[in-house]
Amino acid sequence: MELLKVSSKSNPVSVAGAIANYVKELGSIDVQVIGAGAINQLIKSIIISRGYLAPHGIEISCIPSFVDLKINNDVKTGIKFSIITL
Amino acid sequence: MELLKVSSKSNPVSVAGAIANYVKELGSIDVQVIGAGAINQLIKSIIISRGYLAPHGIEISCIPSFVDLKINNDVKTGIKFSIITL
Repeated sequence: MELLKVSSKSNPVSVAGAIANYVKELGSIDVQVIGAGAINQLIKSIIISRGYLAPHGIEISCIPSFVDLKINNDVKTGIKFSIITL
Repeated sequence: MELLKVSSKSNPVSVAGAIANYVKELGSIDVQVIGAGAINQLIKSIIISRGYLAPHGIEISCIPSFVDLKINNDVKTGIKFSIITL
């Protein structure tokens, strides 16, 4: 499965377009984030992408889980959102 | 449908217990939040509640949407998460 990364500085409209494209092509996409700001941007992106996908008869939902991410030899707890079609 | 409200100061373990109970009883629950801190607490709560529900054979996912909330005569944009069973 493909993996997108979203940060607190990501543009929700751009991320929404990427999510919609992946879901249309592959049926699902995993997105990885660290921190409250990044989660916030991702959730906005998911809501916007719902508007891109709904006219194609595609409804999505997301399943969050914790993931350990190694960054510069530090282990940080991030969150992975599996975005799936309903 | 029942409506929970979660803030940036909510305890994720308590919220997770409430989500799990509502999902077991009703099959779904809507949760309303405003702001990145509250979204962060809610997502952690959803992940923890997955651990409470999985042993009962219940898998959940969430569908976010924007909502206009009237607070002290101001209209703020919040986010509503519909938590559903798969």
